[in-house]
Amino acid sequence: MKHFITLADLPDFHQTLDLAMELKNQPTKWDAMGKGKTLGLLFFNPSLRTRLSTQKAAQNLGLPTMVMNFSQESWALEFEDGTKMSGLRSEHVKEAAAVVSQYCDMVAIRAFASLSDKEKDEAEIVLRSFAKYASVPIINMESATAHPLQALADAITIKEFQPAHKPKVVLSWAPHPKALPHAVGNSFTKMMKHMDADFIIAHPEGYALNPKITEGITCTTDQEKAMEGADFVYTKNWCSYEQYGQILRTDDEWMITPEKMQRTNDGKFMHCLPIRRNIVAADGVLDSPNALVIQQSQNRIFSAQSVLKQLLENG
Amino acid sequence: MKHFITLADLPDFHQTLDLAMELKNQPTKWDAMGKGKTLGLLFFNPSLRTRLSTQKAAQNLGLPTMVMNFSQESWALEFEDGTKMSGLRSEHVKEAAAVVSQYCDMVAIRAFASLSDKEKDEAEIVLRSFAKYASVPIINMESATAHPLQALADAITIKEFQPAHKPKVVLSWAPHPKALPHAVGNSFTKMMKHMDADFIIAHPEGYALNPKITEGITCTTDQEKAMEGADFVYTKNWCSYEQYGQILRTDDEWMITPEKMQRTNDGKFMHCLPIRRNIVAADGVLDSPNALVIQQSQNRIFSAQSVLKQLLENG
Amino acid sequence: MKHFITLADLPDFHQTLDLAMELKNQPTKWDAMGKGKTLGLLFFNPSLRTRLSTQKAAQNLGLPTMVMNFSQESWALEFEDGTKMSGLRSEHVKEAAAVVSQYCDMVAIRAFASLSDKEKDEAEIVLRSFAKYASVPIINMESATAHPLQALADAITIKEFQPAHKPKVVLSWAPHPKALPHAVGNSFTKMMKHMDADFIIAHPEGYALNPKITEGITCTTDQEKAMEGADFVYTKNWCSYEQYGQILRTDDEWMITPEKMQRTNDGKFMHCLPIRRNIVAADGVLDSPNALVIQQSQNRIFSAQSVLKQLLENG
Repeated sequence: MKHFITLADLPDFHQTLDLAMELKNQPTKWDAMGKGKTLGLLFFNPSLRTRLSTQKAAQNLGLPTMVMNFSQESWALEFEDGTKMSGLRSEHVKEAAAVVSQYCDMVAIRAFASLSDKEKDEAEIVLRSFAKYASVPIINMESATAHPLQALADAITIKEFQPAHKPKVVLSWAPHPKALPHAVGNSFTKMMKHMDADFIIAHPEGYALNPKITEGITCTTDQEKAMEGADFVYTKNWCSYEQYGQILRTDDEWMITPEKMQRTNDGKFMHCLPIRRNIVAADGVLDSPNALVIQQSQNRIFSAQSVLKQLLENG
Repeated sequence: MKHFITLADLPDFHQTLDLAMELKNQPTKWDAMGKGKTLGLLFFNPSLRTRLSTQKAAQNLGLPTMVMNFSQESWALEFEDGTKMSGLRSEHVKEAAAVVSQYCDMVAIRAFASLSDKEKDEAEIVLRSFAKYASVPIINMESATAHPLQALADAITIKEFQPAHKPKVVLSWAPHPKALPHAVGNSFTKMMKHMDADFIIAHPEGYALNPKITEGITCTTDQEKAMEGADFVYTKNWCSYEQYGQILRTDDEWMITPEKMQRTNDGKFMHCLPIRRNIVAADGVLDSPNALVIQQSQNRIFSAQSVLKQLLENG
Repeated sequence: MKHFITLADLPDFHQTLDLAMELKNQPTKWDAMGKGKTLGLLFFNPSLRTRLSTQKAAQNLGLPTMVMNFSQESWALEFEDGTKMSGLRSEHVKEAAAVVSQYCDMVAIRAFASLSDKEKDEAEIVLRSFAKYASVPIINMESATAHPLQALADAITIKEFQPAHKPKVVLSWAPHPKALPHAVGNSFTKMMKHMDADFIIAHPEGYALNPKITEGITCTTDQEKAMEGADFVYTKNWCSYEQYGQILRTDDEWMITPEKMQRTNDGKFMHCLPIRRNIVAADGVLDSPNALVIQQSQNRIFSAQSVLKQLLENG
């Protein structure tokens, strides 16, 4: 793989999962692999799990890291071609990406959706520009439309807690006071296409994800029915895709509660975090032994490490 | 020791001091001890000495670090139980502490006092919440009411410059234009209870420290008399404890001057830094060979290293 | 050398260049040299290339680094002597520099010009104060009036692309919407005095650099004539030195264009970056194979590494 921008960049999804599980068993087995190389981590947005888990993954591979909060510590970037750069942006991504490639053997980037311009968000202008002008692999640490390292960690978690039967997995929208991106919902959906599971997406009217991504997948606006007999309930808020960036409702009808979880088949509760308690899910759901959110966060180490290892082997 | 939140958490104060002295003589004697482990440093407030000395201490033990400016780089945390998280706080400490524990083998935290809510400050809500929900040791890098790593460095410094006789040590309040916390004063006082010294606290009317902490210790409002014959003058400003968070006076009557130092027994001058020159102490005091402030800052490496080493051995 | 604040601090300019070239061929030849030591990087201003290239240089020498954004992460510093520190500044550089010296074996600092007070800028108050009060070497990562690590990287680049004949090198001013410092222009000029080249500086009326620095060097206000037959065109904006900090013009007459480059002897285009496209230089110039800006940025690793190595050998 040249870059890791979406799950589709993986040479083999299931081999990557197997590798991640192997790394979880022996995290430092390849701890000399990164010697002499450098991973750059560039953040355009806040991060807790991604920042720390990716650093830890690199450490397990003996791969030194350099972390930058790009917006605060560096120069404002221009992404448009042919502009007269007379405004606030001091450096073009053409130079920035090429320059960073001189110091880093791989560059991981976090750049969230604007949620104001659907076309630009879908063009993934930050990640795609870096990939175009860098001479080293670019790794997606959550972009405008995708969060593949999270989806990979979620896949590991589902595999670890898999029942004997083919599991039923529900991705359920939940309320949130702020407009949130579709990245996690998108990548989870794409990831589930690789899994042997009955997968269903539940969301209120007006909250359908990008239909190109959900093509072929059952979607419903009946949350309670969707959760019936589910083995895994993955919850996430996103803003409206059709009325791009809008919040259509903030009531708590779609909040995940212990009562709703009782309709499941002793279902596990999943969320990528951060999660707003008693808004997205009630305390009783998160404090239950069936909540897997901390296990998911732990698996972020091994999803990142499996991607870094494959990119190091290419190099 | 499970966590290092106050000096009382140390299994043995004097053995810790001896270990710190040993580490100062041979800083890299145990430089393979931290291999494969990770120390997280989470800052909710500014830091110079603590940030660098703790990193250096970890480096001496071969312990990789991950540093985060939590307020700027991560999500705003909720600490209250049972809240409907509809406001500005995106993540609950329950999740944050558990998640950080997946990536770090120890987590050091700096979270200053609010100085607006005595009860909350005394509950040490940040440090205690992390300690409650983390599955790894929490280390205090200055909390609302305590700065034990500073007190330990101060103890090392006093021991290094100890006269042949039982020393007289004065903790003297000094003026400051801003309302400052009691953490350093509190921890210095608690530390002095372990030392074989005549210890006295001098402060103006209205500036008594928490009486639970100063119980059994001589306190006076006569600074000059307190300094008479002193071997060590430890200076620090704090705001009023009784009229919590208030500044009652800003005149320079209590500033430490060379004239006042002449009343001492060739006394050493100590301060935790940062110090405002010609407000807390005059230039002549700080520029004198009797000032030990830089030595204190150096000993911060070994106070941190002695705590890290003990926690690593537990793990 | 005790500190590296200007090019004049180098014991031997040409041996340093040779060392840099050697390090470029074998970056990790001395990768155990920094063991047990620490390099502190203190930033008072934004940085991309300097931040990452200096870290990478240190990594190549096995030298651990601690990076601080001083203005955001630490305490505001006082630089004046004898002040009553009652304002916003919490710590004096006397203490800060001495303290940092306890934790770091070398300290690299970036502190830009104010462009409002020529006298203070020329006194290099930040770098010189740290050098005065630190007990370890101070390294200039761009100060008010100098950027010697950039100039060293530029010298390496010129050497790498040197024609068979004695080259003609032009330093040309170019327009910019913001008032920029003279540091790069100054250090490039000083560096060129060591090179065997015909060197000429072109700038519009009112934009002469400090005459003490350009003494003995041909200066012209005829950019096109200066570029005639040039082998290297080094471009950089700076604000007026005489009318200190002023922008006298923002028209694009002095922008470097492909047409102007045609007057050169297949001339190479150089710039320290970040560069504003179609303001300082047209897209066609930057996208041409004759642009060496990325090579310059790569050579920042080896200019820094050659300085770090020499300072490590001193210690």
